Amino acid sequence: MSDIKKPLKIGVAGLGTVGAGVIKILQNNQDVIKDRCGRAIEVVSVSASNKSKDRGIDLSNYEWADDLMSMATHKEIDCIVECIGGSEGLVKDFVQSVLENSKHVVTANKALVATHGVQFANIAEDKNVGLLYEAAIAGGIPIVKALREGLAGNNVQSVFGILNGTCNYILTTMEKTGRDFDDVLKEAQELGYAEADPTFDIDGIDSGHKLALLASLAYGVEPDFEALQMSGIRHVTITDIKVAKELGYKIKLLGVTKKIDDTYMQTVEACLVPINSAIAAIDDSYNAVMVQSDYCEKTLLQGRGAGEGPTASSIVADIMDVARGNIVPPFGVPSSALKKVKWQGADNIKGQCYIHLVVKDQSGVLAKITGAMSDLNISIDSIIQRGHDEDGRASVVIVTEKTEHKEMKDALKALENLDIILRTPLLMRIEEI
Amino acid sequence: MSDIKKPLKIGVAGLGTVGAGVIKILQNNQDVIKDRCGRAIEVVSVSASNKSKDRGIDLSNYEWADDLMSMATHKEIDCIVECIGGSEGLVKDFVQSVLENSKHVVTANKALVATHGVQFANIAEDKNVGLLYEAAIAGGIPIVKALREGLAGNNVQSVFGILNGTCNYILTTMEKTGRDFDDVLKEAQELGYAEADPTFDIDGIDSGHKLALLASLAYGVEPDFEALQMSGIRHVTITDIKVAKELGYKIKLLGVTKKIDDTYMQTVEACLVPINSAIAAIDDSYNAVMVQSDYCEKTLLQGRGAGEGPTASSIVADIMDVARGNIVPPFGVPSSALKKVKWQGADNIKGQCYIHLVVKDQSGVLAKITGAMSDLNISIDSIIQRGHDEDGRASVVIVTEKTEHKEMKDALKALENLDIILRTPLLMRIEEI
Repeated sequence: MSDIKKPLKIGVAGLGTVGAGVIKILQNNQDVIKDRCGRAIEVVSVSASNKSKDRGIDLSNYEWADDLMSMATHKEIDCIVECIGGSEGLVKDFVQSVLENSKHVVTANKALVATHGVQFANIAEDKNVGLLYEAAIAGGIPIVKALREGLAGNNVQSVFGILNGTCNYILTTMEKTGRDFDDVLKEAQELGYAEADPTFDIDGIDSGHKLALLASLAYGVEPDFEALQMSGIRHVTITDIKVAKELGYKIKLLGVTKKIDDTYMQTVEACLVPINSAIAAIDDSYNAVMVQSDYCEKTLLQGRGAGEGPTASSIVADIMDVARGNIVPPFGVPSSALKKVKWQGADNIKGQCYIHLVVKDQSGVLAKITGAMSDLNISIDSIIQRGHDEDGRASVVIVTEKTEHKEMKDALKALENLDIILRTPLLMRIEEI
Repeated sequence: MSDIKKPLKIGVAGLGTVGAGVIKILQNNQDVIKDRCGRAIEVVSVSASNKSKDRGIDLSNYEWADDLMSMATHKEIDCIVECIGGSEGLVKDFVQSVLENSKHVVTANKALVATHGVQFANIAEDKNVGLLYEAAIAGGIPIVKALREGLAGNNVQSVFGILNGTCNYILTTMEKTGRDFDDVLKEAQELGYAEADPTFDIDGIDSGHKLALLASLAYGVEPDFEALQMSGIRHVTITDIKVAKELGYKIKLLGVTKKIDDTYMQTVEACLVPINSAIAAIDDSYNAVMVQSDYCEKTLLQGRGAGEGPTASSIVADIMDVARGNIVPPFGVPSSALKKVKWQGADNIKGQCYIHLVVKDQSGVLAKITGAMSDLNISIDSIIQRGHDEDGRASVVIVTEKTEHKEMKDALKALENLDIILRTPLLMRIEEI
């Protein structure tokens, strides 16, 4: 380890916020990086669609690759940092070619790895190179490393993640200001915290890509984004947030995966979590991942989940692992050992539920609801009726006793037929973490 | 990586709770461990002082080393797990011999590594083997890996740690029950949460060993336990905990290290932290470490800090790193690059302070104190006088504006000369994390 080694030579494909951020760290922290790796990391070549744009970094010492694909076969380059984005077309072909040319790949591209990761892992392991994606999940939080290495002696039982900073910012702001979803989303868009088309974030897709990867790393199975049941936070109202708080809960968009005996489940959905739990304390745009395992109980990692600095920092850490020769199979176990499993949603999970009913504001409503729930064999833990609005509607919120989720959904369908129910009932799971 | 490799052969020296726990995990989780390493981990030899003791594990397949030192030269063994404890004498000679015989060492022994780590690192790097000690700091929390690898692209600015579960349990129990220190300590001893001689824990020495190692990993400098200023929690009264809460703080035993320009500081002391901060939420016997770095801002890792499972889990993770060939220099940078720095305590830190004065309960006391503080150029942020006791004494608690800590200590010495001050004033720093 104390030998003087040749620099690790890298190419950076894509010079957006993250790509430029990587170069900034490599330039600004080159001394400490060299000390820690025992060798220098040298940028050889860069590539982006716009050559003339001022990115606030000095690129004059690097080759400019007009043809992206030429980087994949560049003789000097040991490792490519992929910051292009997207999961199909050129970027997919490029990463495949890089690996086939026996170069390491470091990326923050969760969609690409969640979709084509197994195929890429096969090539990477065959060529004896790494495919590293710490930056793809929860930005600056070293959770991939924690699952793949730090907790590797454990059987993981479950993983819970707050994986999308935009959603967590919106939910936290709703809670703090008492404003409703649309209002806060609009402000977040104006401030640049949310995209003009926020679908990817607020409908849970971004969290879904990340959760599918976490689930794979947790159990040594193939990631299966297609099988993932996702919903987001569009349906969460300020009433829900307030009532949840009264009941001792906070609402969080959670990625959840559990292994119960030989059953594997994964979902992304808004859940209630106990207000005093560690995960409830993760506010604003922070991310967090909690791992439950057989020998460590609960381990929680939290930090900045996005942004130039944290994401670029995790990419640099992965490059440093490459420089040190610390290459682990992309999904923690050799891809030949990755099991293909049938993923379930939350249907078989037994737990308490939160139900928000909008009902006709008339006498006897509570009796009708509780009667119907009793007929459906759903036990009620607590029930709150909220004030009436001008249209003669009231909100009734119920927390049930522990119920299998599928039973709960079936019961709600039956309940919906009552003439007093004015809107499709809202159902959220309560996660006791 | 997909090659079928020979098993990694290990020896386990010391079969107390941790050593036996390591063997339990290696036996119970051998399949997942083999999958993740791409090779098996095989225990060849074990050693302990008492051969006949029932440890609840099957040792029949392992050689029993009657002579500990013979393990260091055992031809088949690649890696020794040191679970003997202590930092001098036989254990020191043994570890040195193991490394000199080109075998990897994995240990949870914070005292040993904090005291002799640099010397050992020199040998380990010379022999191209690893000295791994994830389990030495914060049990099951992968903080060594986070500093050495996951955040390795950053310049670390500071590290804050709740590093001793016993102290955190005592402080949390005092807060929750309103009982005083001696009472809670006694109960903790009866329950087995605290040692009969609790000095090592409650006077901050255990936290000190851990903090010295964290400080070294954070900045790439030699650990210097001898230079560390430590105090514990014996002086924290239930009054302090209650008043701190009123003022919006919790009291935690914190290991703190900061690098400000070219000044390095490290201390272990009871501090006040904002009640809404993430670190304040770490209760009971949980541990946590927060790292502030230039590109990731705040990263917090929390989990079980001690006990058989978490500690053994981290040891197994280190063994797996050895099996995978992921060997990083023990202190993150090659030992030849470790800087030797002059450590400071908190004297130059500027921050708010908490002062608890016990004074004569007589009229004009507050005027005298505030007058004296004003003469000493200490600005007061808030002041609380607590009720009188039967002996005619009262408590006055002051939170100052930001003051350099040395100035604050000098001012308190001057204040102590006032005839109304009945006891040496208690001073604690407030850490705004």
